[in-house]
Amino acid sequence: MPVHQEEMSLATTAGTDVHDLTPEVRRVVARSGVSRGQVLVFVPGSTGALTTIEYESGVIQDLIRAVDRLVPGDMHYDHDARWGDGNGYAHVRAALFKPSLILPVHGGEVVLGVWQQVVLLDFDNRPRDRRVLVQVMGE
Amino acid sequence: MPVHQEEMSLATTAGTDVHDLTPEVRRVVARSGVSRGQVLVFVPGSTGALTTIEYESGVIQDLIRAVDRLVPGDMHYDHDARWGDGNGYAHVRAALFKPSLILPVHGGEVVLGVWQQVVLLDFDNRPRDRRVLVQVMGE
Amino acid sequence: MPVHQEEMSLATTAGTDVHDLTPEVRRVVARSGVSRGQVLVFVPGSTGALTTIEYESGVIQDLIRAVDRLVPGDMHYDHDARWGDGNGYAHVRAALFKPSLILPVHGGEVVLGVWQQVVLLDFDNRPRDRRVLVQVMGE
Repeated sequence: MPVHQEEMSLATTAGTDVHDLTPEVRRVVARSGVSRGQVLVFVPGSTGALTTIEYESGVIQDLIRAVDRLVPGDMHYDHDARWGDGNGYAHVRAALFKPSLILPVHGGEVVLGVWQQVVLLDFDNRPRDRRVLVQVMGE
Repeated sequence: MPVHQEEMSLATTAGTDVHDLTPEVRRVVARSGVSRGQVLVFVPGSTGALTTIEYESGVIQDLIRAVDRLVPGDMHYDHDARWGDGNGYAHVRAALFKPSLILPVHGGEVVLGVWQQVVLLDFDNRPRDRRVLVQVMGE
Repeated sequence: MPVHQEEMSLATTAGTDVHDLTPEVRRVVARSGVSRGQVLVFVPGSTGALTTIEYESGVIQDLIRAVDRLVPGDMHYDHDARWGDGNGYAHVRAALFKPSLILPVHGGEVVLGVWQQVVLLDFDNRPRDRRVLVQVMGE
């Protein structure tokens, strides 16, 4: 049972930047030759995260506003007082959402609902060159 | 190392509906024949999620109230303004909790604390027929 | 493809106690002999959770304060009214953060960002002897 792994790169902007990774995840799963198993999507770093959502601009804005309410950017963070990064809120948001997402693979395809996409959430306060690992394991 | 997969169906009600999936997850792990490995539980769709909690009516109500505070149902959502679904809050809640849960299998059984159960959280504003995938991989 | 599993024990204190598990996770991955695959970290019990964060005292305090705001300890919980445990908030926090974390293994090492550590979050209101499972699967 070999493990298939690929890495993708993408440029993100400052603020909560949401990217649809579904087409690339589907391509990696197809190239893996795995019929049944799991696909793990992971973003290295402590200010990014992964989840699923309907990739529709209305609900993406709703998510961004919810994140702003849950972990506000405009308040005191010890991290910023100590290091001056100004991205303490991004660290806390990423710890809440977590950097990995695991999904089943069945019939050679990632299993998702019809209106369910895999998204990268980049919470950092500056543009980043992100790399995302996609790893497929199974039979 | 074969991959064992089963699907369960369940009917959910409107509002935050919490279902204990532990007995069925235990049965699927037993039927898989896997002694050591992982079990992945996944709900397709963008208004459901999975986590663990003590399945006790008091704390379930506490969780439901916390969800209502964290992502309120009674406020403006762009998703609803655009599509009229009225379930924008359910999408945001599901993105926060995520649709998958992975747990270790050891000694042929899923590893859980004594007061720790696997639960489906259905946030949608209407009854749904949900399917949940349970996939076991290991030796 | 064998599955390598180890268990670690650690003593936690009352309140949100954050422990850096990264060195031990790295050691388990090294001992597993797995070159490419996944490592699953899991805490049994319904008042603990796992995530990643920069293990820096400023941002750890920021996370603890965020958790206090998101799921306050000083309010009514049905769980406490029924069972008198006083840790209803810990159950809800753990359900939000979840008890498992899965990360890729590549080149025989767990993949993490430079300032990204694996942490146990213990939300319970009393000291606990926690065990944490680390399971490595791959080629």
